[in-house]
Amino acid sequence: MAELNPSNTPVKAILNQNAFSDESGLPEDIQQLYQRRQATLGPMTMLFYKQPLHLVSGKGVWLHDADGKHYLDAYNNVPCLGHCHPKVVEAVSKQLTTLNIHTRYLDEAIHHYSEKLCASTGLKDKRVTFTCSGSEANDLAIRMAQLSTGKKGIIVSRAAYHGNTQLSMSVSPSAFKQESNLPDWVKVIDLPFDIESEEAANTFLKATKALIAELEQSEYGFCALLMDSIFSSDGILSHPIDWMKPAVDYAQAQGGLFIADEVQPGFGRTGECFWGYQRHHLMPDIITMGKPMGNGFPVSALITSSELMDVINQHCGYFNTFGGSSAAIAAANATFDVLKQEQLQENAFSVGNYLKQSLEEITKLRDNFAGVRGSGFYLGVDIIDADGQPSATMANGIVNLLRHQGVLVGLTGSKGNTLKIRPPLCFDKSNVDYLIERLLTITSPQILENTL
Amino acid sequence: MAELNPSNTPVKAILNQNAFSDESGLPEDIQQLYQRRQATLGPMTMLFYKQPLHLVSGKGVWLHDADGKHYLDAYNNVPCLGHCHPKVVEAVSKQLTTLNIHTRYLDEAIHHYSEKLCASTGLKDKRVTFTCSGSEANDLAIRMAQLSTGKKGIIVSRAAYHGNTQLSMSVSPSAFKQESNLPDWVKVIDLPFDIESEEAANTFLKATKALIAELEQSEYGFCALLMDSIFSSDGILSHPIDWMKPAVDYAQAQGGLFIADEVQPGFGRTGECFWGYQRHHLMPDIITMGKPMGNGFPVSALITSSELMDVINQHCGYFNTFGGSSAAIAAANATFDVLKQEQLQENAFSVGNYLKQSLEEITKLRDNFAGVRGSGFYLGVDIIDADGQPSATMANGIVNLLRHQGVLVGLTGSKGNTLKIRPPLCFDKSNVDYLIERLLTITSPQILENTL
Repeated sequence: MAELNPSNTPVKAILNQNAFSDESGLPEDIQQLYQRRQATLGPMTMLFYKQPLHLVSGKGVWLHDADGKHYLDAYNNVPCLGHCHPKVVEAVSKQLTTLNIHTRYLDEAIHHYSEKLCASTGLKDKRVTFTCSGSEANDLAIRMAQLSTGKKGIIVSRAAYHGNTQLSMSVSPSAFKQESNLPDWVKVIDLPFDIESEEAANTFLKATKALIAELEQSEYGFCALLMDSIFSSDGILSHPIDWMKPAVDYAQAQGGLFIADEVQPGFGRTGECFWGYQRHHLMPDIITMGKPMGNGFPVSALITSSELMDVINQHCGYFNTFGGSSAAIAAANATFDVLKQEQLQENAFSVGNYLKQSLEEITKLRDNFAGVRGSGFYLGVDIIDADGQPSATMANGIVNLLRHQGVLVGLTGSKGNTLKIRPPLCFDKSNVDYLIERLLTITSPQILENTL
Repeated sequence: MAELNPSNTPVKAILNQNAFSDESGLPEDIQQLYQRRQATLGPMTMLFYKQPLHLVSGKGVWLHDADGKHYLDAYNNVPCLGHCHPKVVEAVSKQLTTLNIHTRYLDEAIHHYSEKLCASTGLKDKRVTFTCSGSEANDLAIRMAQLSTGKKGIIVSRAAYHGNTQLSMSVSPSAFKQESNLPDWVKVIDLPFDIESEEAANTFLKATKALIAELEQSEYGFCALLMDSIFSSDGILSHPIDWMKPAVDYAQAQGGLFIADEVQPGFGRTGECFWGYQRHHLMPDIITMGKPMGNGFPVSALITSSELMDVINQHCGYFNTFGGSSAAIAAANATFDVLKQEQLQENAFSVGNYLKQSLEEITKLRDNFAGVRGSGFYLGVDIIDADGQPSATMANGIVNLLRHQGVLVGLTGSKGNTLKIRPPLCFDKSNVDYLIERLLTITSPQILENTL
């Protein structure tokens, strides 16, 4: 098993190395915009890149800045069909001119969409509740799990991120800057990296068993295992599949729930399956989803059994003003249909494989590239320094050099040294070649040495 | 001071009397749609009216059902400019075809809007953070208050509703069905009804002092007073103004914060001022807003000082994928501009006064109408039975009779006997006359006796 992260450095502090921090030397227009941002938004929102981007338009996989420069988007997963997909724009615009109202009146469209969405999950008894954000969906999922089991303890991964509400942030070790501040009822599991299937499964099972036992002996009890099966903020752990199953089976056999956070892997992104948990042959008790669901329109959801829905319903009910509103459903329905019509899951699978192979080729040419993980269009590349150590600095350098070469990628992982490549699902082979060519250019030993 | 609600009946159980509950006797198409709803959404979402409405389109203050019947909307506050306002539709549609992205890149429009929005608040040092829902904004506000004061205790009103996340629901006594289940650190203040200014202010101050003392003597300490200044779910308490000020001043002098929940009263609805707290001459430490902000597009926000923003920023930071996205800002900006251009706050003031006077006339003609409260387009009418007792049954009967007469209103109040009249802000005098005429028709003694 690979070395666990023994550092007490908060995960977020590492990830934030990709954040803008230094105003000096910026072009004047960018500096002015940044100052206006400070005067209105204040310190709360982070900007990407050492020289922030001022974007003004987007189409498909391309984004354009105020100077007319174009950028290949290999980062943004929310516009999963590509930026400004005309069919979603048309569906939302048409709905906004017709009716946009909450769910306390009857509506045909919400059922039409819900039937398709629920059918895709493979769950036997399923009901859907619409929310606005993945955070709201996870917040509700945790409450549902805690109320139904009568227990409180939640197990998550080492660098998990499940949302920005107080409850969803409580189970997000990567969300804290100063110290992880996790409540006692949240237990963190260190993840097995890069190992053979049998060993990974056993390591994970053993760790899960130990944490469940710890929770059961505490005042909290064991409530649920909550995981994003592509482990986006843990550095992207995609293979081997089936390593999660023995632990999840064990957790469910102990009376706990498995909550699949599909905000990142859902809607075909991982290529092999429509939902991330399906890659691992898991059967969740609760599924949450969000980001790509409306191709940018704020919409998210939770799917579970009618029995679990009823637990919330008896306790407090749940109403979400914007959740499942007519326009949100129009966006989600059009997004779902285009995903199917344009066979974007299949594209994520085939072009994703091509991208992964191309990145693997780079690891042979560049000593700084240690390994490639991921599935479909959710890929991670570990960057190491000359001594073979994980290098967040070098990874961050690559991200910023790529930005100046017109390609957008991000960072992830508890050590902050993993390139996160997560393009819109319509990314094609020529886009891959474009990305690879630029990645090769900026990682030539001369350039890297001179700029980092 | 009026009798406080001594009953242990949960507030929500009373409010839910307006919910659909009985499938029998419905038209076949409505019954089929309801069964599809049960099979997809399950028990979680409540439907309005004994015979639910199947709406298919809306324009201005009018909604239309699948049978072509039209309804005057005197209930929905989210489409504050009127349903499907063309300028908002156009702004959102245009933005969706151009660019719709999160806030980690620079953008001019968000600052343009934020500058206007912040200027409207009258706060000296102000920064804005965008979220998706009022719940998310309140969830963040409570955390911000608790982190900055180092204390936990929150004081809210008896039938308050502040959101659907775990944290915002914790401070929402009206959200629970079975029992109020409020945490120990949430204290509820009973509200003074229908009394002269001086007495109301003193009663409120005395109650606030007592609860602050109680919290300060507890392990929690006093953190904040969190209130919606129109007291929407408490039955709408609008006058006299200034009754809140001594208590809020005292709370702030004790080192606590005042959080103004403007999700309901904000954006000109109460007519006299743009923000509800301005009617009461209060200066909040944190302002939250949502519902009407984008005329139906999911967008909400929190405004506070840069100092308080920084408390969150140092602790965990805050990023909201859809909060402040390009399309959300386009919707909010267009909504703000139309509100100003069409002078809808002024309309809420003048036509709201006309509506209030017209409702007061009805109290002289109908024994069941006990009194009218409210400001601008947020009005409440108390319904009593023949013995002069608050009657939720009769109020519910009126709401359902009005629905069949083509007028939509709702219910509120801890006793569930208050008609909630809260139309889009473009409601005009002829709309008032239409509503009043139908209200008079269905409340004739013969009709009420025969139907209730």
